[in-house]
Amino acid sequence: MESERPLTESLIECVPNFSEGRDPARIDALELAISSVPGALVLHRASDPDHNRSVITFAGKPEAVIEAAVRAAAKAAELIDLNCHRGVHPRAGALDVLPFVPLGETTLAQCVTIAHRAGERIWSELGIPVYFYQAAAIRPDRVNLENVRRGQFEGLREASLADATARPDLGGPALHPTAGAVIVGARKILIAYNVNLKTTNLQIAKSIAKRIRASSGGLPSVKALGLPLSSRGLVQVSINLTDFEETPLHVVYSEVCRLAEAEGIEVKESELIGLMPRKALEAAAVGLLKLAHFDSQDVIENRVETLASLARR
Amino acid sequence: MESERPLTESLIECVPNFSEGRDPARIDALELAISSVPGALVLHRASDPDHNRSVITFAGKPEAVIEAAVRAAAKAAELIDLNCHRGVHPRAGALDVLPFVPLGETTLAQCVTIAHRAGERIWSELGIPVYFYQAAAIRPDRVNLENVRRGQFEGLREASLADATARPDLGGPALHPTAGAVIVGARKILIAYNVNLKTTNLQIAKSIAKRIRASSGGLPSVKALGLPLSSRGLVQVSINLTDFEETPLHVVYSEVCRLAEAEGIEVKESELIGLMPRKALEAAAVGLLKLAHFDSQDVIENRVETLASLARR
Repeated sequence: MESERPLTESLIECVPNFSEGRDPARIDALELAISSVPGALVLHRASDPDHNRSVITFAGKPEAVIEAAVRAAAKAAELIDLNCHRGVHPRAGALDVLPFVPLGETTLAQCVTIAHRAGERIWSELGIPVYFYQAAAIRPDRVNLENVRRGQFEGLREASLADATARPDLGGPALHPTAGAVIVGARKILIAYNVNLKTTNLQIAKSIAKRIRASSGGLPSVKALGLPLSSRGLVQVSINLTDFEETPLHVVYSEVCRLAEAEGIEVKESELIGLMPRKALEAAAVGLLKLAHFDSQDVIENRVETLASLARR
Repeated sequence: MESERPLTESLIECVPNFSEGRDPARIDALELAISSVPGALVLHRASDPDHNRSVITFAGKPEAVIEAAVRAAAKAAELIDLNCHRGVHPRAGALDVLPFVPLGETTLAQCVTIAHRAGERIWSELGIPVYFYQAAAIRPDRVNLENVRRGQFEGLREASLADATARPDLGGPALHPTAGAVIVGARKILIAYNVNLKTTNLQIAKSIAKRIRASSGGLPSVKALGLPLSSRGLVQVSINLTDFEETPLHVVYSEVCRLAEAEGIEVKESELIGLMPRKALEAAAVGLLKLAHFDSQDVIENRVETLASLARR
């Protein structure tokens, strides 16, 4: 079984945000910088011309992901001059934000290490200063991305020279003259998930959203909005779940169902926006089936992968 | 990614039933005959001394699984003499039954081909005659295993000589003098699954079992019994699901919940006996979350495996 190493062992997702969302040739070149690394698998790509920004999601093992991230930073610095960049989304770098996200059995702590290794290479090999944010932050005032990016490229390059506390974590004090700085981080995966209700009464969606969101005392790790789906005659509770292990998907779903039912409203369906990790779906099935004593190794394919992995040691 | 072939590509489960359930040294030797094949992964082993029978579940790619099945048949013929075998479970061979089961993206048709290839090797290399059953049957009267095994070793060896219609599909007319015949087949995976109810009223479990089982007009592919769990003060609807694609797990669960609720009884929990395939759990989550437009490739790890597989072509 030497050739059968499970892919989900040490798998990491990386979600670089580039300050280019209009020129398809440049965006292709950025994607190619990533996919040219063997083992770096591009999962998704989205561009917004108003934001003038693209997000390319890819995954792979640590070495492949770090190499692809560094090549992406180099290509972005080659193609993008922030002095000429306009867009409604704030940005501090040509490669603006570079989060590493654990998949499979990978831990957030491993992603912090990888973020730091990628950041060190970006500074030492490319000469682009680096800030670390969220779980990879090395200063508490830099956990929050918006705090780090305040003032954007134009403001930060002044502040970094003028004020020692605004300096990048690696490199500086001057930012790169055209590529700015890269904000490198580690975070848990975000699940974008909606529940659609069979009513046109937007107030019901807004009220349910308010009751489930963490910021108003609802479920931890839940952000939620009530939105109209006018063309379909429905309303939507639009949810971002920032930690599906803290609040599992089925807990959010069941709570929306319970609150809708209390208003006499039926849930039509739920929907996933983008991708979700396998563990989130497994946990939802186990929760909704009230499956007692369940272990992930009770799934045949999971056990096969574990046994194959052990057989190689 | 040459070394990263997904394990779940072309994965097959094999569930040999051996006519030996008492001597641990012999059962160890049977397991070793399987696990000595690189890529044949033993998932589970169960022996019953009254049945005098053992079931060893293993999985792997087609070539590994066929090789391990043939070695298991050879070792069983070496160690077991049916002339001296006593047990309450009917049997026709030292290796009695050899079903191949699709996992992952493997189809039942592929398992039929594999069953036929394994059967041909068992006859040509070991001189043990073979009957084919269930999806691998080549005669309609041999689809049902109990039809094939009627008369057991002692009756079949007479019948096979006396009556051309009782001859094995490969080899014969005489059965092997000590190892009998191997009954080789292909079937879908069986999920053993129970739902436990918060009542001591056994009639309720029996009545729900009757209403959901296929044989009394309930859900297709469902076998069910009502059983007491006296020490826990519960009753159980004990379910065998023979085709989770025809009747998904959550449909069975939801129907039991609905029928229990109609009797004013609460469902305490459900439980899995043994293992279940990943697809069954994914389908249950999607069904219970009413997840619209869901595709298996929306699961990040599934997409990564597909992309890695495409990258190698």
